[in-house]
Amino acid sequence: MHNMDRLFEKTAAYGHVCVGLDTAAQYIPPAEMRKALTDSAAVLNFNKAIIDSTIDIAACYKVQIAYYEEMGIIGLSVYAQTLRYIREKGGLVIGDIKRGDIADTAMRYAKAHFEGDFEADFVTLSPYLGMDSLEPWLKYAGSKGAFVLMRTSNNGMRDFQYLKIKSDKNKLYNMIGDKLSELADRYPGKYGYGAFGAVVGCTEREEAAEIRKKYRNLFFLIPGYGAQGGAASDAALLLRKGNGGVVNASRSILKAWSTELANNGGDETAVTNAFAQEAARNAVIAMRDAIKNETILKAKK
Amino acid sequence: MHNMDRLFEKTAAYGHVCVGLDTAAQYIPPAEMRKALTDSAAVLNFNKAIIDSTIDIAACYKVQIAYYEEMGIIGLSVYAQTLRYIREKGGLVIGDIKRGDIADTAMRYAKAHFEGDFEADFVTLSPYLGMDSLEPWLKYAGSKGAFVLMRTSNNGMRDFQYLKIKSDKNKLYNMIGDKLSELADRYPGKYGYGAFGAVVGCTEREEAAEIRKKYRNLFFLIPGYGAQGGAASDAALLLRKGNGGVVNASRSILKAWSTELANNGGDETAVTNAFAQEAARNAVIAMRDAIKNETILKAKK
Repeated sequence: MHNMDRLFEKTAAYGHVCVGLDTAAQYIPPAEMRKALTDSAAVLNFNKAIIDSTIDIAACYKVQIAYYEEMGIIGLSVYAQTLRYIREKGGLVIGDIKRGDIADTAMRYAKAHFEGDFEADFVTLSPYLGMDSLEPWLKYAGSKGAFVLMRTSNNGMRDFQYLKIKSDKNKLYNMIGDKLSELADRYPGKYGYGAFGAVVGCTEREEAAEIRKKYRNLFFLIPGYGAQGGAASDAALLLRKGNGGVVNASRSILKAWSTELANNGGDETAVTNAFAQEAARNAVIAMRDAIKNETILKAKK
Repeated sequence: MHNMDRLFEKTAAYGHVCVGLDTAAQYIPPAEMRKALTDSAAVLNFNKAIIDSTIDIAACYKVQIAYYEEMGIIGLSVYAQTLRYIREKGGLVIGDIKRGDIADTAMRYAKAHFEGDFEADFVTLSPYLGMDSLEPWLKYAGSKGAFVLMRTSNNGMRDFQYLKIKSDKNKLYNMIGDKLSELADRYPGKYGYGAFGAVVGCTEREEAAEIRKKYRNLFFLIPGYGAQGGAASDAALLLRKGNGGVVNASRSILKAWSTELANNGGDETAVTNAFAQEAARNAVIAMRDAIKNETILKAKK
């Protein structure tokens, strides 16, 4: 089954939340950290707990490899085991690796992240080197997919992504979007989305509708929700007919236990993974429903 | 000592060759592959052999992490051990990782590659997300450094790096160069180069002199030599007063044993690491001298 069709169907069934497993040690309940033999064991246990409690309400998971690379070899083993756990449970996982390199090297990165220890269903890629840097990954298109950085959600995105191109009315990110859209047509799924989609942040409301309209065949991975300022109504503008995008949230889900504590009181040192699981589940459901409601409002307009 | 001063002094003493340890199993003498317990053990042995035979004639080493990520956890352990071996021998090593991500995530990548298992002296970074994606790395500036992708050497570089910017006569890669040059002034070394330099390929001869002149405070990491079409005279155009850049070559050094066999005959199955060492050393010396001669010719003009 075409990789983007699988994501489309998951999104249709479970909603738009992509659970970001950017799991830093400080996001884990202190009691669980003490109980675990090592920090990395605590991270793996916590990830499994969060996956168990959200597998039927999340479209997919995004695992940010930097949080694991930071811990070195042992951390990357936790990364590998987290990906495997999600896939064994029938979930879809995006390896958030933002790799980007040339020919032979790109081929090796593709093997690294579409096969073997680090096998993911999707990866994120960086386009600066040019379209030939994507080609080796495209050999896997249809069974595997990617989200290529188009317009991100950080402050610095204006440095280069917003530069206006001389020959054209376009900005750099549009040029990249145009190329990605051509690429998507080469590997179409049955729901109209190509195997490779784009990363489009939901922080810039005024461009969202235009981007969605212009790139109809691109499935979006949407960062910028919550802490970075994007609301459910912003994210909904990047969706199409109630599908076509997943919205990532990490800290607000992983640290939902801490938010719940701050709101309702309680002893932090007594919090367990079981408590964190329920808090995470509630956070995903609230986010899922907020986005769903906005897509319904948008459809009525 | 400021990181770029260390590289400057190594370059002055040993010449401009950056030995690329992009070690694929097929670059290793077949007899050594058979002798080793595992492929990854063979890669590590071969890397150590090449390092031993070039440590006094190479400015630095560049280890392309993709070749190790491809082998999964065990491969990354070989990556870590290769870096450690170079540093223990007093060599300088560039982790060719081309990472690029935002705030918190970038901070974790920086910790991953400037501390712990994967500690390198320099890394390569991708600028697409904007200048704020470089900030966390700059906390290490002065003891550690980076080369940021500016103009690469692959065919696809024209897709985005050459786009002309509307407000300006510049191309995108110039805009990035300008920002990097500002950055370099914030962390100057005593030889006039900032802690963070740029990746500038030597495949486009006609722009080289202009780039060198414009970005006087940027030390260059120069790919594109040899197989990709760049000659010693092209590389020399990117140097300044006989310094200011290192020129990477990988396959032509690692597979020098195979080239020697093709030229002079002999039995491939009998080739050992000792033979590969000598061939690699000769290849580095030939490349070093070719570039040095061109810098002398250029100075005379």
